Amino acid sequence: MTGSTVTESAPSADVTQVTVCAPVNIAVIKYWGKRSVSLNLPTNSSLSVTLHTDDLRSTTTAACSPLFASSGEGDILWLNGKKENVAKAKRFAAAVEEARKMRRERETADASLPKLSQQPIRIASVNNFPTAAGLASSASGYAALVFALKELYDLPVSATELSRAARLGSGSACRSVFGGFVAWRAGEKEDGLDSVAEQVADDGHWPDVEALILVASDAKKDVGSTEGMQGTVATSELFPARVANSVPKRMKQMEKAIASRDFDLFAETTMRDSNQFHATCLDTYPPVFYMNDASRAVVRLVHAYNDLFLAKEPSGADETDGPTYRGYRCAYTFDAGPNAVIYTLRSNLPQLAAIVQQLIPNAPETNKEEFWGPYLAELFNSGSLPDVSGVIEYMGLSPLPVGAIRRAIHTKVGPGPTVLAKGYVDGVSLLRTDGNIIEK
Amino acid sequence: MTGSTVTESAPSADVTQVTVCAPVNIAVIKYWGKRSVSLNLPTNSSLSVTLHTDDLRSTTTAACSPLFASSGEGDILWLNGKKENVAKAKRFAAAVEEARKMRRERETADASLPKLSQQPIRIASVNNFPTAAGLASSASGYAALVFALKELYDLPVSATELSRAARLGSGSACRSVFGGFVAWRAGEKEDGLDSVAEQVADDGHWPDVEALILVASDAKKDVGSTEGMQGTVATSELFPARVANSVPKRMKQMEKAIASRDFDLFAETTMRDSNQFHATCLDTYPPVFYMNDASRAVVRLVHAYNDLFLAKEPSGADETDGPTYRGYRCAYTFDAGPNAVIYTLRSNLPQLAAIVQQLIPNAPETNKEEFWGPYLAELFNSGSLPDVSGVIEYMGLSPLPVGAIRRAIHTKVGPGPTVLAKGYVDGVSLLRTDGNIIEK
Repeated sequence: MTGSTVTESAPSADVTQVTVCAPVNIAVIKYWGKRSVSLNLPTNSSLSVTLHTDDLRSTTTAACSPLFASSGEGDILWLNGKKENVAKAKRFAAAVEEARKMRRERETADASLPKLSQQPIRIASVNNFPTAAGLASSASGYAALVFALKELYDLPVSATELSRAARLGSGSACRSVFGGFVAWRAGEKEDGLDSVAEQVADDGHWPDVEALILVASDAKKDVGSTEGMQGTVATSELFPARVANSVPKRMKQMEKAIASRDFDLFAETTMRDSNQFHATCLDTYPPVFYMNDASRAVVRLVHAYNDLFLAKEPSGADETDGPTYRGYRCAYTFDAGPNAVIYTLRSNLPQLAAIVQQLIPNAPETNKEEFWGPYLAELFNSGSLPDVSGVIEYMGLSPLPVGAIRRAIHTKVGPGPTVLAKGYVDGVSLLRTDGNIIEK
Repeated sequence: MTGSTVTESAPSADVTQVTVCAPVNIAVIKYWGKRSVSLNLPTNSSLSVTLHTDDLRSTTTAACSPLFASSGEGDILWLNGKKENVAKAKRFAAAVEEARKMRRERETADASLPKLSQQPIRIASVNNFPTAAGLASSASGYAALVFALKELYDLPVSATELSRAARLGSGSACRSVFGGFVAWRAGEKEDGLDSVAEQVADDGHWPDVEALILVASDAKKDVGSTEGMQGTVATSELFPARVANSVPKRMKQMEKAIASRDFDLFAETTMRDSNQFHATCLDTYPPVFYMNDASRAVVRLVHAYNDLFLAKEPSGADETDGPTYRGYRCAYTFDAGPNAVIYTLRSNLPQLAAIVQQLIPNAPETNKEEFWGPYLAELFNSGSLPDVSGVIEYMGLSPLPVGAIRRAIHTKVGPGPTVLAKGYVDGVSLLRTDGNIIEK
């Protein structure tokens, strides 16, 4: 196979190579609906939290070399170790062509630069989470791709330009180009030049925001999100009200919530927007369902838990922009699948995890480390979780049958794409012949 | 107990008595949201199919007698054999008072009339279906009540006035005053005088329309419908678009569908409206869920089944008012609970039942007669159901776990309230001492 060329000739100065990682982002104001399918231009702005690459990431190695030409295969892409058909991966090929074109322009302007644009490219990308989990693998994947190409070719592109390029691959990927809290401005131009993401606040601004992702056991998707959202645009009679009224108001509320670290406003706006997005899916014809009974159990759990601590906000001049209640402990949001992402503040995470364990129990034989990850597993195993029996009693909910949630992923707000290595690490190519990446 | 008075003195000419039954109705354009809670005035018009009282009914006996005064108990109400606290049953008491007032006016005008208005009243009402099944027992119950009072007091009220009186008891009860296909006009007046139901077509107009009700096993309601709908009115940002745009258009489409017996338009409008109603529930804050995984399985089944027979309608001048597709076999609708009501045409019912049996299987030990009712049980037991193995294969759906549906109720379009008996039947009072009704 052609991939073996790398091994045979590596390490070699003739191979230019970079390895990067890029984060997953989970929207709190949802992107749903395209005004242009070919350009991935959205019907409305959206806003997301970038999750930490320590926990969830796409890692991508991009390499080019004159040695790759000998096989005659041209560009090659491996996704999670599996070689893809580049001819069919049109958005991938377009991203490579755009980067190569920019590189060629640089090489033309500066004859001293190596002619990387003339070399076949090889790219290997892996996610550290199962694609089937319904997490937004295309967002982190395309963000990693465009970032890797920029670094490989040493392109002088701004983060905004990178965001635009990522958007062409997969809409929400434009938000994974930044860390922290990120808004994707829908823009108005037909060519989409103004449809880019921008950082609202970096990952150091509100580091207390953490996320507990509950991966549903039955995570099969009914309808893909591109098909689903275009069905909504075409058939939902409620959708225009969301685009015209709810989203613009909520974008402002959410930016205000983040700027002032107002978790109540953040939480309530997040939940209202998740519900409204799924409402427009249900108003689609035929209807699209992403949430299942386990998802709904999480919704009930979060509301019942919050209700114990909520106080109705006294009315005031600011009320129209403020949350209805004060004292939120956590907030759910659901993408186009049944998995719940629960945002909470760090101080509250152990109690939340203990409640989840009681009400959505995993089987007794479950490996706590595999299910909960190291931080929470340590709390479970050392018996340091708070006693929630009183809280559970007040919540008045019955536990779900064992096993509705397959695993939990605990993470926090994190940075944008990062270069992990340029060239070789310890003299060994990161790009193996099978397309897998050896991480440090 | 006071009820024994009846038995002791009956049969007696001193007891005036009537027994009536009234139907359940299931909306195809949903009522959801009140503009006045005290008067049960809706935010939007709605339209329903009256189901046949052969299968689903409230049976109500109303009796009055000077003999009832001796106990000093005043008016008495039994619901399903259980004596209610009339002081707390304010809407019941108001209905009785209104009828009594009208009777008093008649008695004042015509001294020859017996003074029934001065006698305590005893009312016993039973449903032939479990209240907990989530079927609209309050609609048939209040329609039976106001109809029984009219008959007991021989009041010269029109069906429209009866509808208004029923509405005050329970909004959708105003539609159960008519048979066939019934529209409830929202009206505009503050006093609600113009908020009444009217018959769009009687039960002989389109007798082929049948219904298969699938009663979900887990039929516990999250939130009552009055609380749920007022939550939607107060918090859903999508709801105004439903009221202003979707419902008025769909009312016209539905009346057109019924007038022309256009099952395609009927089916598609029914499903779109059910979905939109549940979408506004999901857009409520906190969200309200009535459908569960079994409900969603029925939705998928109906779409997959229809898809085998649907052809995209060629565009034409009439397209904006017409269905998108032609060839519908059936249509689901869900009220404020997980039970599915599937409307279909008579010729198609056996195939539909056979498909449901395959994809939402009941346990092998299930008594077919109890589960399916006599007509379908006979088809099942005699092996006369059509072979649906090919259809099932094309549908490509996996069966649900056994037992998601508790029973099926097969019924059809039916008439409005009916008098079953006046006075005594075979010399025996229909009103027994325990409040139960002896039907003929």
